Amino acid sequence: MTSNTLGNNKVMQIGMIVENIEDTVQAWSRLLGVEPPSITLTDSFDISNAQYQGKPTTAQAKLAFFDLGQVSLELIEPVGESSTWNDQLTAHGPGLHHIAFEIKGMQEHIRGLADHGLQLIQQGEYQGGRYAYMDGQKRFGTVIELLEND
Amino acid sequence: MTSNTLGNNKVMQIGMIVENIEDTVQAWSRLLGVEPPSITLTDSFDISNAQYQGKPTTAQAKLAFFDLGQVSLELIEPVGESSTWNDQLTAHGPGLHHIAFEIKGMQEHIRGLADHGLQLIQQGEYQGGRYAYMDGQKRFGTVIELLEND
Repeated sequence: MTSNTLGNNKVMQIGMIVENIEDTVQAWSRLLGVEPPSITLTDSFDISNAQYQGKPTTAQAKLAFFDLGQVSLELIEPVGESSTWNDQLTAHGPGLHHIAFEIKGMQEHIRGLADHGLQLIQQGEYQGGRYAYMDGQKRFGTVIELLEND
Repeated sequence: MTSNTLGNNKVMQIGMIVENIEDTVQAWSRLLGVEPPSITLTDSFDISNAQYQGKPTTAQAKLAFFDLGQVSLELIEPVGESSTWNDQLTAHGPGLHHIAFEIKGMQEHIRGLADHGLQLIQQGEYQGGRYAYMDGQKRFGTVIELLEND
């Protein structure tokens, strides 16, 4: 690992929490002049093995992605409770949630970021990879997501 | 203007509100393994002619920028009241505030985005350009910033 704990400085995704993903997809599609992307549901617990605040959670989310160049914009509508997605929507309403970096070696990076005061708040698997949200809201101004694709 | 109201789909900046920019600059510098960028103060009202919610405001902000590839990360510490920056910090604490697109033709784009339900909430000048924040928090999940550099 270099002195750059993330291993790179290229943000690859901006994640936002929305109340109604169908409506927000339509709004962005019209603004950007692109076809509406498909809306998918995150994997259920048997695949995701999701953990929120250290406990298993069956919470899911509906997702849609827009291509904004280097960065993709991820729209997230919470489904169910016990997730950082649902907590942010309840506490603050729709809004930006995280910025994501792609890494290799999830456990090593979770430990590396913990050394910078970023604590793991939620993690899960998806087909082909895994994610971890690190709580940097106060020190870094945002949740930082680590994404590892196999 | 094409069917893409922004004229492009390349997000160029992610803006976040912070409580203490000196501390947050240090945290990001260490995480990314880069030298701390300089911290600047936005221009005073005689240059900025800033307007918030349709009224002149002398509010300013301290700014610092990190290079995250295509995108720059803008750290914003509010100075003074009567700004979208200060209102977000008061209401929600530190957090992501906007994503920015570079455009040519500010008034035309402000009108174009208004047709999509994005209302102007704050605007100002800086040496070499101007900005406008469009309120997309509910419909688009974020404030959208328009940036025009001469």
